[in-house]
Amino acid sequence: MRILGIDCGSQITGYGVVESDGTAHSLIAAGVIRTHAGDPLTLRLLDIGRRLREIVDQYKPDEAAVEDTFHAVNARSALKLTHVRGVALFVMAEAGLPVGEYAPAKVKATVVGHGRADKEQVAWMLRALLKHQGDFPTPDASDAVAVAVCHAVHRPMAAHLGATK
Amino acid sequence: MRILGIDCGSQITGYGVVESDGTAHSLIAAGVIRTHAGDPLTLRLLDIGRRLREIVDQYKPDEAAVEDTFHAVNARSALKLTHVRGVALFVMAEAGLPVGEYAPAKVKATVVGHGRADKEQVAWMLRALLKHQGDFPTPDASDAVAVAVCHAVHRPMAAHLGATK
Repeated sequence: MRILGIDCGSQITGYGVVESDGTAHSLIAAGVIRTHAGDPLTLRLLDIGRRLREIVDQYKPDEAAVEDTFHAVNARSALKLTHVRGVALFVMAEAGLPVGEYAPAKVKATVVGHGRADKEQVAWMLRALLKHQGDFPTPDASDAVAVAVCHAVHRPMAAHLGATK
Repeated sequence: MRILGIDCGSQITGYGVVESDGTAHSLIAAGVIRTHAGDPLTLRLLDIGRRLREIVDQYKPDEAAVEDTFHAVNARSALKLTHVRGVALFVMAEAGLPVGEYAPAKVKATVVGHGRADKEQVAWMLRALLKHQGDFPTPDASDAVAVAVCHAVHRPMAAHLGATK
């Protein structure tokens, strides 16, 4: 089972691809999609959606996972992020991938053992879990790997997967 | 110049197609995209994005327009709407259409003359402006036509069009 985790952001969107049998996980790829700082949101959404499609084509995941942002604060950045999340869900659905959605605290609790871990603790635990020697490109990439691992662990119980046609 | 206006919503998304020379406007089409009440958001986004693509293929607009929702309240419905808005912007950008974005009050002020008009006043004025005899299918459809007309009027000054590749 191959899982694509996505950490949505309007400036940097992280992605992580994990192969997992539910208990043992290995890292296939981790990286980020950067958009141009001066570009309007619409153009950033276009870049992000197209890159996500390429990543699906390249790594051929079976399922995808994103963080649930319904608890996000009403800041301008949170609204931008939600636009990106809409595009990510659309692209995954078009690719026929079921998408699991997890609260940020659940992702951290799954990887580190408690829901208030910081990004460095998450990255450290992921390196141990995945027997990954190197660093992740950025915290956005490790967060994306974390949500993929979270989905690998919880997907047998995940009744909230958005069934796709 | 043919303009596609979109009124984003997770349950009902309105669309309106207007032909305009900037002063005289005529209605080409108005309708709604309804999603299934029980479907998960991801599946709704898939339906909406695909239908918007079909509408672009059918009516071949030159440009598109949506309401700016950055002032939306932080309710669950506003966040769902923002996901839909992300998909709409992505689909328009992929189709190569520049997208104008307008605050709701600007749309109303352009169509009715003041920014606090209700939906019935907007629909009434649109029928007069467009010499349209019939009713609009729903207020979502008339709101979509309104944002298209707003773009027709303001696009010469709209420096904020998201340039698309």
